Amino acid sequence: MPDFRYPRRVQFAETDLAGIVHFSWMFRYMEEAEHALWRAAGLSVSVRGSEIGWPRVAAPFDFNSLLRSDDEFEDVVRLTEMRTPPALDAHTIVRGTTIIGTGTMTSVCVRYQDDGRMEISTVPDEVRNKLQGVLGDG
Amino acid sequence: MPDFRYPRRVQFAETDLAGIVHFSWMFRYMEEAEHALWRAAGLSVSVRGSEIGWPRVAAPFDFNSLLRSDDEFEDVVRLTEMRTPPALDAHTIVRGTTIIGTGTMTSVCVRYQDDGRMEISTVPDEVRNKLQGVLGDG
Amino acid sequence: MPDFRYPRRVQFAETDLAGIVHFSWMFRYMEEAEHALWRAAGLSVSVRGSEIGWPRVAAPFDFNSLLRSDDEFEDVVRLTEMRTPPALDAHTIVRGTTIIGTGTMTSVCVRYQDDGRMEISTVPDEVRNKLQGVLGDG
Amino acid sequence: MPDFRYPRRVQFAETDLAGIVHFSWMFRYMEEAEHALWRAAGLSVSVRGSEIGWPRVAAPFDFNSLLRSDDEFEDVVRLTEMRTPPALDAHTIVRGTTIIGTGTMTSVCVRYQDDGRMEISTVPDEVRNKLQGVLGDG
Repeated sequence: MPDFRYPRRVQFAETDLAGIVHFSWMFRYMEEAEHALWRAAGLSVSVRGSEIGWPRVAAPFDFNSLLRSDDEFEDVVRLTEMRTPPALDAHTIVRGTTIIGTGTMTSVCVRYQDDGRMEISTVPDEVRNKLQGVLGDG
Repeated sequence: MPDFRYPRRVQFAETDLAGIVHFSWMFRYMEEAEHALWRAAGLSVSVRGSEIGWPRVAAPFDFNSLLRSDDEFEDVVRLTEMRTPPALDAHTIVRGTTIIGTGTMTSVCVRYQDDGRMEISTVPDEVRNKLQGVLGDG
Repeated sequence: MPDFRYPRRVQFAETDLAGIVHFSWMFRYMEEAEHALWRAAGLSVSVRGSEIGWPRVAAPFDFNSLLRSDDEFEDVVRLTEMRTPPALDAHTIVRGTTIIGTGTMTSVCVRYQDDGRMEISTVPDEVRNKLQGVLGDG
Repeated sequence: MPDFRYPRRVQFAETDLAGIVHFSWMFRYMEEAEHALWRAAGLSVSVRGSEIGWPRVAAPFDFNSLLRSDDEFEDVVRLTEMRTPPALDAHTIVRGTTIIGTGTMTSVCVRYQDDGRMEISTVPDEVRNKLQGVLGDG
C-alpha cells in the first residue's frame, strides 16, 4: 500500500542560532503533511463550526540528523490505525536518502458538546473511508 | 501620563541562523505587550464567542538595533488614539538604554455579523474607559 | 518588467483563535517570497560563514482582507531599489483577485567585522545583477 | 530534591482556530523551562562560538488536557540523567492542579569539529555540577 509523500523546503525563519532547524518545527512539518494527506483524500481539518475535532494525544519524535536552511526534504506518512480511536499516523522525515527523524501523531476524534466540552467519539466512516482510499487499510 | 512597560526575555527559538532575533518576532512582542496592557485594564482580547474583534489594519516597524538570545528587554507602550476607530498603540522596544526599534499597531473594532462577516464598529465605552484608566487619554 | 509570484497555502498552525491567519505571518510570507526570489536568481541568504548579511530596517504591512486555514494565496514581489542601500522589495499578497494586504521589506547589506559588529556596505554587484536578471531594473 | 518550576502565560498567537494552544507549543514551553533552569544554574545554551552544543535526540509529549489563551500555567522540570549522555529532563505542564501533559527532552552533548560535524561528547563537569546544584543528583 502506498505511502503519502509531502515535499517541503526549510524556510530561514525555521532555523535558530545553532544554524539548524529548531526541533519544534518537526512537529509542524508532521502536521502539515498530515493535513496535506487529508486534502488529498478530499477532507479538511479546518472546518469552522465543525461538530468534531482532532486533539493530539501523543506526539513523540526521534531525531537522527539535521536540517538546514533551504534544505529540501520530504515527510513520508503512513496511516497505521483508524479502526478505533486513537487515529495514528507514522512519519519519516527524509532529505534524499538521509533519515532526519521519525515520529508519530496520535489524535482522538472528539465531538464538541453544547457546553464546550469534548467527548471522545469514533472516527466517522466517511473520514476512515476517504483516508483509506488514499493510503490503504494500514 | 504613564507609559505601560512590558518586560520580556528573548527565547532561544526566537533566533535564526544569523544569531539574532528573527525580525517577525517584533510584531509578536508588540502584541504580547498590547494584550498585557489589556489585562492590566481588566480586559481581554481572548473572549471566545465575543461579538467584537480587533483585526489589524497596519503594523509598521522600524529596526534600529538587534536582540540576541537571552536578552532582557522591555516594550514601552503608549496608547495614541481610542476615540474613533482605528485604535492605535505606539511601541518602543528597548534593551536598557538602547532602542531596538519602534512600531505601531493599528486595529479596528469590528462586530461579527450572523453570516460571519465583520462590520467596523466604534470602540465600546467600557474598553476605552478601562484602557484610559491605565494609560490616560493619550 | 515581470513580477515574481510566490504561491503558498495557509497552514493550520498559522491561524489563531479568531479563526484567521495571525497577522505576524504576513511578515514571514513576505520573507519566504523574497528568499524564493533569491533562489530563482541563483542566490541564497542562508550562507553559513558569509561575510555579508541583510538585517531588516523597516517592515510595514497594511491589511486589507483576511486569510483562513487552507487558503491558497500568492505573494507578488517587485524589487524597487537595489542601486544603493537600502535594498527594498514591495509585496502584494493576493488570494485570487482579492488583495489581502501590501507591505515592503527594507534591508541593508552589512559586512560583518572581526569583532562581530556589522558595517553597512553597498549591495554586491553579483547580487544586484542576478536579482535584476530575474526581475528587471525596478 | 526540589523540582524547578517555570511559570508562563499563554499568548494569543500560540492558539489556533480550534481555540486552544497549538500542540507544537508544548515543545517550546519545555525548552523555555529547560533554558530558565540553565540560567538559574548560571549556565547558558546560547553562547555564540561555543565549542559544544545540545541537539535534541528525542522529544515525546503526552497530552492530557488543554490550554487556552491567557491561561497561566507552570512547567515543572526534573533532571533525570546527567552522568552519561544523553542528558534528559522530564516535564509536567500544569495549570493549577490540572495536568496539561507530560514530556521529556533528551539531548546529547556534542563537540563541534573543525569541518562543522558534531561529535558526541561527555557532559562537561561544570555543566553537570551547576545543574545538580540547582536540582540535585536526579
